[in-house]
Amino acid sequence: MPEIPKLVSSMGKAELDRIFVRGHDLNEELLGKISFAQMVYLMLVGRMPTAEEGRMIDTMLIVLVDHGMTTGALAARMTYHSAPEALQGAVAAAILGAGSVHLGSSEYCAKMLNDSLAQDSKETDLDAIAKNTVEKRLANNQLIPGIGHGIHTQGDPRAEKLFQVAQETKVYGRYCDLLRKIGKIAEERVGRRLPVNVTGAIAAISMDMGLPWQMSKSFAILGRALGGIAHVGEEVRRPIARGISDLVRKNLQYEPEK
Amino acid sequence: MPEIPKLVSSMGKAELDRIFVRGHDLNEELLGKISFAQMVYLMLVGRMPTAEEGRMIDTMLIVLVDHGMTTGALAARMTYHSAPEALQGAVAAAILGAGSVHLGSSEYCAKMLNDSLAQDSKETDLDAIAKNTVEKRLANNQLIPGIGHGIHTQGDPRAEKLFQVAQETKVYGRYCDLLRKIGKIAEERVGRRLPVNVTGAIAAISMDMGLPWQMSKSFAILGRALGGIAHVGEEVRRPIARGISDLVRKNLQYEPEK
Amino acid sequence: MPEIPKLVSSMGKAELDRIFVRGHDLNEELLGKISFAQMVYLMLVGRMPTAEEGRMIDTMLIVLVDHGMTTGALAARMTYHSAPEALQGAVAAAILGAGSVHLGSSEYCAKMLNDSLAQDSKETDLDAIAKNTVEKRLANNQLIPGIGHGIHTQGDPRAEKLFQVAQETKVYGRYCDLLRKIGKIAEERVGRRLPVNVTGAIAAISMDMGLPWQMSKSFAILGRALGGIAHVGEEVRRPIARGISDLVRKNLQYEPEK
Amino acid sequence: MPEIPKLVSSMGKAELDRIFVRGHDLNEELLGKISFAQMVYLMLVGRMPTAEEGRMIDTMLIVLVDHGMTTGALAARMTYHSAPEALQGAVAAAILGAGSVHLGSSEYCAKMLNDSLAQDSKETDLDAIAKNTVEKRLANNQLIPGIGHGIHTQGDPRAEKLFQVAQETKVYGRYCDLLRKIGKIAEERVGRRLPVNVTGAIAAISMDMGLPWQMSKSFAILGRALGGIAHVGEEVRRPIARGISDLVRKNLQYEPEK
Repeated sequence: MPEIPKLVSSMGKAELDRIFVRGHDLNEELLGKISFAQMVYLMLVGRMPTAEEGRMIDTMLIVLVDHGMTTGALAARMTYHSAPEALQGAVAAAILGAGSVHLGSSEYCAKMLNDSLAQDSKETDLDAIAKNTVEKRLANNQLIPGIGHGIHTQGDPRAEKLFQVAQETKVYGRYCDLLRKIGKIAEERVGRRLPVNVTGAIAAISMDMGLPWQMSKSFAILGRALGGIAHVGEEVRRPIARGISDLVRKNLQYEPEK
Repeated sequence: MPEIPKLVSSMGKAELDRIFVRGHDLNEELLGKISFAQMVYLMLVGRMPTAEEGRMIDTMLIVLVDHGMTTGALAARMTYHSAPEALQGAVAAAILGAGSVHLGSSEYCAKMLNDSLAQDSKETDLDAIAKNTVEKRLANNQLIPGIGHGIHTQGDPRAEKLFQVAQETKVYGRYCDLLRKIGKIAEERVGRRLPVNVTGAIAAISMDMGLPWQMSKSFAILGRALGGIAHVGEEVRRPIARGISDLVRKNLQYEPEK
Repeated sequence: MPEIPKLVSSMGKAELDRIFVRGHDLNEELLGKISFAQMVYLMLVGRMPTAEEGRMIDTMLIVLVDHGMTTGALAARMTYHSAPEALQGAVAAAILGAGSVHLGSSEYCAKMLNDSLAQDSKETDLDAIAKNTVEKRLANNQLIPGIGHGIHTQGDPRAEKLFQVAQETKVYGRYCDLLRKIGKIAEERVGRRLPVNVTGAIAAISMDMGLPWQMSKSFAILGRALGGIAHVGEEVRRPIARGISDLVRKNLQYEPEK
Repeated sequence: MPEIPKLVSSMGKAELDRIFVRGHDLNEELLGKISFAQMVYLMLVGRMPTAEEGRMIDTMLIVLVDHGMTTGALAARMTYHSAPEALQGAVAAAILGAGSVHLGSSEYCAKMLNDSLAQDSKETDLDAIAKNTVEKRLANNQLIPGIGHGIHTQGDPRAEKLFQVAQETKVYGRYCDLLRKIGKIAEERVGRRLPVNVTGAIAAISMDMGLPWQMSKSFAILGRALGGIAHVGEEVRRPIARGISDLVRKNLQYEPEK
């Protein structure tokens, strides 16, 4: 058995009468004084954000909450229908789909940005970095995450909105620039429109805010947790889970595999 | 196979160029304009909250995020250590502990409040309702959820703070009153201090905001989702999961059961 | 901070060259020599089962694996479709629905049996115990879990089969008897057929095998884990998750709540 | 909205009086007659396995159940401690750690084997394929999954045992051979012992049994589901979760990040 290293944390700490979170007295300094979005930033970055940074976080938390009966909403409703005494399980089911096909590309995009331009790098020639990134990806037959969209082929309006808020809040920085340049160069090389998409914008903005690339999926996860909760809330008032389940079974044909 | 009923939802809806959430155009009306807390209210209640209601939601979302290495934080760190490519799994593990022993009492308390005084009831004699609720519970040997605390025996400062914000934001209503009365009467009957605790305050406030009782655990779940994400974020920068795992194994004795 | 009690476990233990599980050398005594069902019994009860007990466990593990597109299968497919790189998340989604509405009644039934007749009790008058149990439940307006079925009103053939295997394997004991008596008495009191259902049979049999009541849902969970995996396996070969998702959205009407 | 394709499944199907699973009548043909391991094979492959194939499956299901207080066991215990009313959540937490660092390498190894030699390929020169695979991986600076072990540097006895059972049950085939050859060639090229490890053996054997590479993590997931259940079972009898939690907090130092 190896020696146990010193175990250190800077998250929360409970004393008899007080709770500290990230060095702040929860009751005296945080409750009633800051927004949840500011709390997100404080927990992830370690310092209190400005109101503008808070507004940027709010926007990233909101953008992916819901756009209809997503796979996560379906999973949450099915789970709640069977286990209504465990709301936490339904929310867990909602977020477990935040993977590579949907939502997860923010993580891959943030990693690509980080590999191209480390957060402590002094490099400034973004055009060269973008070109190099695209060429390497194409040479290795790798997808370029964060650009292009199946439906919004001419540009994902949510991404544009996120960039606009990033500029208004002064969060917009070199990673946003870099990803847009990557999109432009990829378009020229590939021959079709490849604008930055919503998960790409989240990736670039969260990198510009100083978050490690591993954390950029956080916004989708928190947003979809709310989405799952909201669909369960509707299930409480106007249940449709059983109807959905019946609809699927009615349209399903049972055929042995050959 | 039964007839499929009409399947209706009022959550999100995607059109080719626009996304509507709860009847609002996501890009035009929500992004950059409202806070995540307001979005929580909009998704759960169906109308846009006032800024004050938003502030109340913020406070309930923040209060349970973290207070040290909770069981949820431990579960999240263990899961991330083994499956770092699936952040969503670590967050799911963090929230799956939001059950009857920790955090979940907000749901039981909200149900008790709802059973005592339905949201559409015109009853006004809160003293009588409180007395009746306590007597019935004691007669059936049932716990009274939402009051008393193992450590904060003289009063949970977080609950006091939540009630204070509820009063400042004008959210404070008859359910907050009722729960405090229940605590007072239970104290007299049981003979020890039983002030409203943090999950009780969340229950009463969310009932006063018009949320169905089934939804009051939502705040703990969203808060702990952030807590789990933040602990993973620390794991990325200063990993201790392996050290924790070694510490536990080193202190564990292997003894067959008799 | 309280004193740390001695931490003791009798589960697994890894040495440099050997792994012990429940006191048995994994490589020498278990691998290739016992079945998974026997392993289930060994892990939960602590001693090696007979071949007959193993056969009983096999039957309880198999009975709930799948019966069509269950809510768990749907949740698993939706999750896998979005996050195919994390099979574990899809399986987690499949089992999170093992709650109070579906599958979970085995736990409630086992608890009722345990409350009526503790495992170390010497009581032998099962008729009196059954009568007492039914009367108390009806008086308190409580459901009697483990009996009756929405579809199989004349008897759930799976329950009959489980009892038959329990008799063949000599596992059948006083809890099986007690639950059947409870069903009979409830029928007389309520005035309609209330035969033991499949989750009731699992509860009674697992109590007769000496499992604590809290563990009787284990069989449903392991069975549905396999069900979820199998549906994902089909999704790999003949994907229908997107089709299901489109079907649901096509049949969904978007209507604001009043 | 796209046209809905025909939705087809060959898993389970419920009729009024009968349940069919994979074309077999559950009550008449499966319950009491086949083992859970055979059911695993039937569900994943679609045909009834021989008794020998069933024994192979049993061995793969057993091998990873537990080897002490794994990260999954810890996550399950923490979750159960907070939410004992939802066993399914604790089991979900146990399996969510089946990712890239632990357990998940069986999937990566199976994919590598499949990329090197497709299941319908007629290639027979395994030496050439093995050499090619190793060279390509080393050239691209990619890890070779399924070989080597941090502790069992001279050979993982569990892998040897799995291969032995594979030979006894006649399941051993070209993928087992190929992976061993890959290990041998990698040893020569890298200059240290790189024997096949336990997740590698599972990958090769499940490929030889005709499972798609995406399914090879199934055995670890089902095994760890049982492991999680068993740790919860111990928690019911001899609870240590709170002690573990206190131990960790006692050894944790709270230090703000710089």
